[in-house]
Amino acid sequence: MSSNSLGTIFRFTTWGESHGTAIGVVIDGCPPLIPLTETDIQPWLDKRRPGQSRFTTQRQEGDKVKILSGVFEGVTTGAPISLVIENTDTRSKDYDDIKDKFRPGHADYTYWVKYGIRDYRGGGRSSARETACRVAAGAVARKILGDSIKICGAVVQIGAHKIDRNRWDWNAVDQNPLFCPDPTAAAVWADDLDKIRKNGSSIGAVVEVVASGVPAGWGEPIYDKLDSDIARALMTINAVKGVEIGAGFGAANLTGEENADEMRMSSDGKPQFLSNNAGGILGGISNGQDITARFAVKPTSSILQMRQTINTAGQNTDIITRGRHDPCVGIRAVPVGEAMIACVLADHMLRQRSLRAAN
Amino acid sequence: MSSNSLGTIFRFTTWGESHGTAIGVVIDGCPPLIPLTETDIQPWLDKRRPGQSRFTTQRQEGDKVKILSGVFEGVTTGAPISLVIENTDTRSKDYDDIKDKFRPGHADYTYWVKYGIRDYRGGGRSSARETACRVAAGAVARKILGDSIKICGAVVQIGAHKIDRNRWDWNAVDQNPLFCPDPTAAAVWADDLDKIRKNGSSIGAVVEVVASGVPAGWGEPIYDKLDSDIARALMTINAVKGVEIGAGFGAANLTGEENADEMRMSSDGKPQFLSNNAGGILGGISNGQDITARFAVKPTSSILQMRQTINTAGQNTDIITRGRHDPCVGIRAVPVGEAMIACVLADHMLRQRSLRAAN
Amino acid sequence: MSSNSLGTIFRFTTWGESHGTAIGVVIDGCPPLIPLTETDIQPWLDKRRPGQSRFTTQRQEGDKVKILSGVFEGVTTGAPISLVIENTDTRSKDYDDIKDKFRPGHADYTYWVKYGIRDYRGGGRSSARETACRVAAGAVARKILGDSIKICGAVVQIGAHKIDRNRWDWNAVDQNPLFCPDPTAAAVWADDLDKIRKNGSSIGAVVEVVASGVPAGWGEPIYDKLDSDIARALMTINAVKGVEIGAGFGAANLTGEENADEMRMSSDGKPQFLSNNAGGILGGISNGQDITARFAVKPTSSILQMRQTINTAGQNTDIITRGRHDPCVGIRAVPVGEAMIACVLADHMLRQRSLRAAN
Amino acid sequence: MSSNSLGTIFRFTTWGESHGTAIGVVIDGCPPLIPLTETDIQPWLDKRRPGQSRFTTQRQEGDKVKILSGVFEGVTTGAPISLVIENTDTRSKDYDDIKDKFRPGHADYTYWVKYGIRDYRGGGRSSARETACRVAAGAVARKILGDSIKICGAVVQIGAHKIDRNRWDWNAVDQNPLFCPDPTAAAVWADDLDKIRKNGSSIGAVVEVVASGVPAGWGEPIYDKLDSDIARALMTINAVKGVEIGAGFGAANLTGEENADEMRMSSDGKPQFLSNNAGGILGGISNGQDITARFAVKPTSSILQMRQTINTAGQNTDIITRGRHDPCVGIRAVPVGEAMIACVLADHMLRQRSLRAAN
Repeated sequence: MSSNSLGTIFRFTTWGESHGTAIGVVIDGCPPLIPLTETDIQPWLDKRRPGQSRFTTQRQEGDKVKILSGVFEGVTTGAPISLVIENTDTRSKDYDDIKDKFRPGHADYTYWVKYGIRDYRGGGRSSARETACRVAAGAVARKILGDSIKICGAVVQIGAHKIDRNRWDWNAVDQNPLFCPDPTAAAVWADDLDKIRKNGSSIGAVVEVVASGVPAGWGEPIYDKLDSDIARALMTINAVKGVEIGAGFGAANLTGEENADEMRMSSDGKPQFLSNNAGGILGGISNGQDITARFAVKPTSSILQMRQTINTAGQNTDIITRGRHDPCVGIRAVPVGEAMIACVLADHMLRQRSLRAAN
Repeated sequence: MSSNSLGTIFRFTTWGESHGTAIGVVIDGCPPLIPLTETDIQPWLDKRRPGQSRFTTQRQEGDKVKILSGVFEGVTTGAPISLVIENTDTRSKDYDDIKDKFRPGHADYTYWVKYGIRDYRGGGRSSARETACRVAAGAVARKILGDSIKICGAVVQIGAHKIDRNRWDWNAVDQNPLFCPDPTAAAVWADDLDKIRKNGSSIGAVVEVVASGVPAGWGEPIYDKLDSDIARALMTINAVKGVEIGAGFGAANLTGEENADEMRMSSDGKPQFLSNNAGGILGGISNGQDITARFAVKPTSSILQMRQTINTAGQNTDIITRGRHDPCVGIRAVPVGEAMIACVLADHMLRQRSLRAAN
Repeated sequence: MSSNSLGTIFRFTTWGESHGTAIGVVIDGCPPLIPLTETDIQPWLDKRRPGQSRFTTQRQEGDKVKILSGVFEGVTTGAPISLVIENTDTRSKDYDDIKDKFRPGHADYTYWVKYGIRDYRGGGRSSARETACRVAAGAVARKILGDSIKICGAVVQIGAHKIDRNRWDWNAVDQNPLFCPDPTAAAVWADDLDKIRKNGSSIGAVVEVVASGVPAGWGEPIYDKLDSDIARALMTINAVKGVEIGAGFGAANLTGEENADEMRMSSDGKPQFLSNNAGGILGGISNGQDITARFAVKPTSSILQMRQTINTAGQNTDIITRGRHDPCVGIRAVPVGEAMIACVLADHMLRQRSLRAAN
Repeated sequence: MSSNSLGTIFRFTTWGESHGTAIGVVIDGCPPLIPLTETDIQPWLDKRRPGQSRFTTQRQEGDKVKILSGVFEGVTTGAPISLVIENTDTRSKDYDDIKDKFRPGHADYTYWVKYGIRDYRGGGRSSARETACRVAAGAVARKILGDSIKICGAVVQIGAHKIDRNRWDWNAVDQNPLFCPDPTAAAVWADDLDKIRKNGSSIGAVVEVVASGVPAGWGEPIYDKLDSDIARALMTINAVKGVEIGAGFGAANLTGEENADEMRMSSDGKPQFLSNNAGGILGGISNGQDITARFAVKPTSSILQMRQTINTAGQNTDIITRGRHDPCVGIRAVPVGEAMIACVLADHMLRQRSLRAAN
């Protein structure tokens, strides 16, 4: 069944495999008259692009995006926007010796059972390469949302090491290759990652994304709540195993009076909350505070250590996954997580617009 | 925009408010020829029903379900199944003195901003009473799934106290009013909850749901993955702030070799996994292992302690939420969580059926 | 697969069988703050209600609608609106002797093949009784559209007799039981129908619906065009075999210069069209002119004449369909057709609202 | 709102403008393991391709299709199939002098009102060039349907001249450039079209599509009926103003006993119908007979005669639409109509598969 689209009013559909000719995304439902060129999209792709530091895969992809439709004389027309990115640095031969083996932690076995076939070259459709398309869609979503809404992500934990939230500095995030808001933690992580990489191992991470400037009122009870749409969107990212909003799992350990955010009128006459355990969402609807979401990314499954597995013939065997891989795939998940939040917000912005004409 | 439905092939739509005449659900896409009577549904509603122990709200609702359509001579016909539950024990006057105030932690403020109106009686549409409809839909979903698939939930944490997983006993779950699989923890929790209740406070919880017997191959990349659909569905439950699959957030602290579940052929010639950090899902597709999901439930926001808030006139005020409330709403979330998983699985079972006729 | 809903932003779901306890509709996506009571809905149901003249079925149904949710203190809240109509005059025994036979022209055979079961009492789910739910949904849609948009239907052909369009009088439509805008034709039709009824036969009809006051800009290329959504909606009505917009099939016999509606600025400075072959829709988008749609309704298949058929055992047999039936089901299709147009327009009104905030 | 997709389980999304770089379609929901190469698609595109006779536009497009994803080692994988066709013969300058004028009968005015912008080059998104993508999707749909289902279309009326159905010869359809099943009519039409073309005029047409081999049981009441999905799909084709199934509008002039198709067991023990006024569909579900649909195509709106119109500044003006155009756009609608029926049928084939595993 069709399953490669996300969103309702703002809806995108991705296509393409890791080692195919190209990958792409069709964005449908973008309002007209929004200025859009490739230069609005490319910087976000560059942020996700592989091969930029020793902490990410060495696959070299230019990830140059081309707009094929939906833009006329520099602005969107309301027609679907087709974006294409060519695959240029595919080394499919890396995969020849594992084409009959199921890599542990990967989708090889499940794709094979589900579809009766799998494109083994770089994971085919299940590759995280697909996330470039999400980032491109997210760039368009940001244009719809406008400048008053900021969506920023950061890595807040790698392995056992969490950042010190008292040292949180958004400026630091772009100054280290780990998207870390805590420079001290960044240094520790860099050392750890060097060791992990040399061991041919990998490590998990937690990413946090904050959306500020979102007005109260977005999100639709009961089954299209803003938080449930965010949870769904983040959980579709490769390797994500958990999602939380605001206090998240920590809320289990709070009392009602600790958890429920009290309200007061601010000095400028606007409603304000005295805390943000809700993560900016109450009853599935934004409340005007920062929306905060975190997601857990499992360690890269492609590692240089010998693992036990089986093959398509139903025999026991062993496997080492060579190829070029990220020691911590959570790092490059930052721009992807931001993009997913941007897409969900753009959809709900347009949904809310349909609800109340007078607002 | 329409937002009260969940699912694609198996799709249900709920309606009704906490203090209205009735609540109900229309289940569309149920295959024909499945035996179905009210007695297939009622036990699951009884499990969720309020007023059954001192640890849940004292509202007394019979929650008697009636089938109004879609069943003929004892079996489903393929036509939509309309289920209705009357509201009988509404005490709307409890809410008169708070009708202009926004209860902290509730959806009062956000509904008011979004819709420009809110039904203040018991939370109206945002009440957890709506979850009775989910449980009814889940009962039908279980009939579709058949007896070979078991979906069982349990509370695994209340406040700071987690169960000892070594003591996990599924039989214990039905023997205490807290759905706790660890009898020792259940006793501790009961003491804690008595204190919390007497304080007019509340506490959060974590619920775990396990689905066993699910064959490999269900779930649809990229945007309708089994885990993303589960995450979405669980996050739509009132008060849920986090969802995780398998190792979940713990995966952040694992290395690739610790995390990726190795495979071996079993003695009976079937593929097996040597661990289950994946929680039964790889690449968004079930792998034949138990599917394990956990979700965090925040403490009940309705508490008997004085809190700061504002009113609809934009003035500071205070509030105590009287009425009848659960000291730990996570407890009654167990059958709801089970129901959501059942609905997602039934949908994906039918989706997979459409994919490969020969299977 | 779920298939009992129509619409995207404004979406309704119907349920119920001809001889079940009740029928109903859940309307999701109605904006908040719209005044709504049963008295807004009942008159439209009364217009469709059976048993009101000798030209329609003698089944006596009060068709009293109840609002079960979604309305608070007299206005909509944005929550789903559940409407229920009880079935009161079911005579299921009428159907006992045909329960194993497939009535020619009915859905008996196809339901039986598709679902492996059919509710033979009055056609079950395939009965035109379901259209009462559409009419109820249409009444809510009209409230969303507001008073500036008028949607009026009329019968324009019964059997071989078409109305004389020069005599078209909208006031006449409500003054005869045939919804005929041409009083002269109405008299002829009445005579014909009396003969047809006495013969135990039936006859087909063509219905026209005109929506005036629709602003230019509604409808969404390429696959949710206003005309394609109208065509779909009308074709879902029981017994409808054809749909046309504007010049319709007559356009096949026009030249380009005859067909394409020329434009001029009106004296009040507004764009106007000099003809309306387009039926108010160009490129799938409303152009500000009257939207005109026609649909053909086949003769009632339940007739008192002996017909050849087969039974569920695969044997040849004969059948006479007794029960109470309309000699021309096209007559009561008028309010149903109006309702479908209203629902499609309300959906596209809200869709357009999401597109351009500034409009 | 997103509106460039059609279908549920089998779902395609088109993109691209008449004079952009390329056009394309993403097909999602195609089952795996279906052999597919460009050569399965190209012949259908060639059938629709412009410039092949004097009766169609002289724009020369190779319409060479490329598969960019979803196929691995010659078979589909279940991943989305991205198809691209380059635009090569665009002469955008033809449109410079009409870029501020609204062409009568075209979507120029409505796009401009709806979106506030329009790509005037060849009609932009509203151009019938988009239908090449539908034909490509239809080719994939045919592969899913398999060889036992045949979908064939023909022109049955041009202007006032209908074919003689007694002379119907499917072999003739491919032997004349007008897709006419009646060689005598084809000769008359050719003469007429020559005159029309020389006059710079155009003419309408009626197209009939027949699908044979469709088993009973496809189509889903109430709102996704097979005939309503067909009506919607056909009505989305550019210039289509009417759709009918089986007896269609002719059913208005039939009595119940003339219309309702009687049944008998055939000599080989299978149910058969003695006539086909239903056009193969009863109650929205296929009955095993040929599915017959007809649609009316208005005359090409681009003609070489002077017409009255207005411009974007709100002034009266005149217009002649030069460029290269079809004198009867209904001719090239034949392969497009076939493709739409193929797509609808493939979707419903997969939908039915999900309903009843045991069948």
